[in-house]
Amino acid sequence: MSKLVIVGTVAFDAIETPFGKTDRILGGAATFIGLAASQFNIDAVIVSIIGGDFPEEYLDLLSNKNIDLSGVEIVKDGKTFFWKGKYHNDMNSRDTLVTELNVLADFNPVVPEDYRNAEVVMLGNLHPLTQLSVIEQMEVKPKLVILDTMNFWMNNALEDLHKVIKKIDVIAINDEEARQLTKEYSLVVAARKIHEMGPKYVVIKKGEHGAFLFHNDNVFFAPALPLEEVFDPTGAGDTFAGGFAGYLVKTGDFSFENLKKAIIYGSTLASFCVEKFGTERMENLSGEEIHKRLHQFKQLTQFEIELS
Amino acid sequence: MSKLVIVGTVAFDAIETPFGKTDRILGGAATFIGLAASQFNIDAVIVSIIGGDFPEEYLDLLSNKNIDLSGVEIVKDGKTFFWKGKYHNDMNSRDTLVTELNVLADFNPVVPEDYRNAEVVMLGNLHPLTQLSVIEQMEVKPKLVILDTMNFWMNNALEDLHKVIKKIDVIAINDEEARQLTKEYSLVVAARKIHEMGPKYVVIKKGEHGAFLFHNDNVFFAPALPLEEVFDPTGAGDTFAGGFAGYLVKTGDFSFENLKKAIIYGSTLASFCVEKFGTERMENLSGEEIHKRLHQFKQLTQFEIELS
Repeated sequence: MSKLVIVGTVAFDAIETPFGKTDRILGGAATFIGLAASQFNIDAVIVSIIGGDFPEEYLDLLSNKNIDLSGVEIVKDGKTFFWKGKYHNDMNSRDTLVTELNVLADFNPVVPEDYRNAEVVMLGNLHPLTQLSVIEQMEVKPKLVILDTMNFWMNNALEDLHKVIKKIDVIAINDEEARQLTKEYSLVVAARKIHEMGPKYVVIKKGEHGAFLFHNDNVFFAPALPLEEVFDPTGAGDTFAGGFAGYLVKTGDFSFENLKKAIIYGSTLASFCVEKFGTERMENLSGEEIHKRLHQFKQLTQFEIELS
Repeated sequence: MSKLVIVGTVAFDAIETPFGKTDRILGGAATFIGLAASQFNIDAVIVSIIGGDFPEEYLDLLSNKNIDLSGVEIVKDGKTFFWKGKYHNDMNSRDTLVTELNVLADFNPVVPEDYRNAEVVMLGNLHPLTQLSVIEQMEVKPKLVILDTMNFWMNNALEDLHKVIKKIDVIAINDEEARQLTKEYSLVVAARKIHEMGPKYVVIKKGEHGAFLFHNDNVFFAPALPLEEVFDPTGAGDTFAGGFAGYLVKTGDFSFENLKKAIIYGSTLASFCVEKFGTERMENLSGEEIHKRLHQFKQLTQFEIELS
């Protein structure tokens, strides 16, 4: 079976939205990526670090989805990474209220032996040098390395970020980050400049406005499914990435045509993620529900204009 | 041949963008709608009003595109409506610097006899009572009445606006206007509330982020074609509406499936409009160019996921 390496945070989140607030609940990029990827029945391992305060039930929740946790280091006397944020009324912007790195401050990822020949590596948002170290541990060159990052690293570790961007195949960032990275307003021009930095594929996420996939002169776009209500956007980008990566691992087809489909799967899964707080919706998601929403996606986007 | 009635301004625009500025050039909603609709070789008439200062060459430009100007009243000693605006650096927002209503202040639209049985009526942005008067002049109930409006009328003539909204089939407004009209943030909920006000079809335009078409529980989405450079957004919404209306008149098919295609044609034409100042790009646009861009649109949006 094809394998996926997921590197990223496994964390506690506390979230406040206009609809309510939570205490510490399960969160983290690798958690959301893993839950999304688990929909594809693939071999996926999470490489991360947690403290002794991390509840057994959260580990069980992930294990029960067949997510391999052999890459998760547990620091018995340490505390798990904690993020607290508050969303504004438009749900498109948020303030970070608390960031406690805790054990993440000394994270040295170790890819389990069994996964050093994985076809796909999904690098969740982390320090670029941490991401780089994972690539270097792979014994067989992966078919696809996907990178998520954010403006924080552009501000604080740009040189290191460029080192990792050079070595990856797909970068997934949001529109403002693409603009910051390239100093270009047009996303078409920004994508071209990012291509020149290394990645063959550039995914630019626009939140509720959808996502672009650029590849040379080709471009594909998937809207976000219009929802009555966005309850909590936390993890939507990671869920998108996890669906994207999971579908590619499952199919083993890394053509542009298949990456388009992976984008649709990613968008579809992300549309569920935002319906409830944290991971709640992703924990309870059936294949039938996904199938139904893929159908909605086709109705939303497909049309029949015959061109000679 | 099927007929289209276009009601709206024929005007002078002066535009400033980050890329340059123009003196008074040809503008106005009906102008852009007409130029877009003229691509479909249909019988289209403009119902509008201009002053004696309006250049013969602009009238010729429209006539040469087979746009019927028999509904354009010329007030010899009056001055043509003038709008001057300046776009901000992001090109998504603009300031109105000058609005001179001039002859538009006393505009009483008269639909030419020959067009009082037209299949489609496109009501460009004007006072709601002016729009209403056009509907009332139609001797045969049109197959489709399309309304464009804006926040100005929501602020200043809301009651009259509701009178006209009750009588139309398609409303085309932008996302902020939809939110203002319904006091709902979610566009899905806003669309449902607008349905309840009368229109069977609700088009919500999001500028560079594309457009939704809502019809009962169905929703279709067309992205805006990603461009290297948006030179001047003036008229893009009207061009979209003109392409939408023109395609429907041409095909005579007012089903939801065909409205989807009309949205794609509208988006395609709008993608040309923004490439040059004012009407310049729309004046010189070949069928071949449109065909090529429709092809790009399919590549941008179409994917193949088989669902049982």
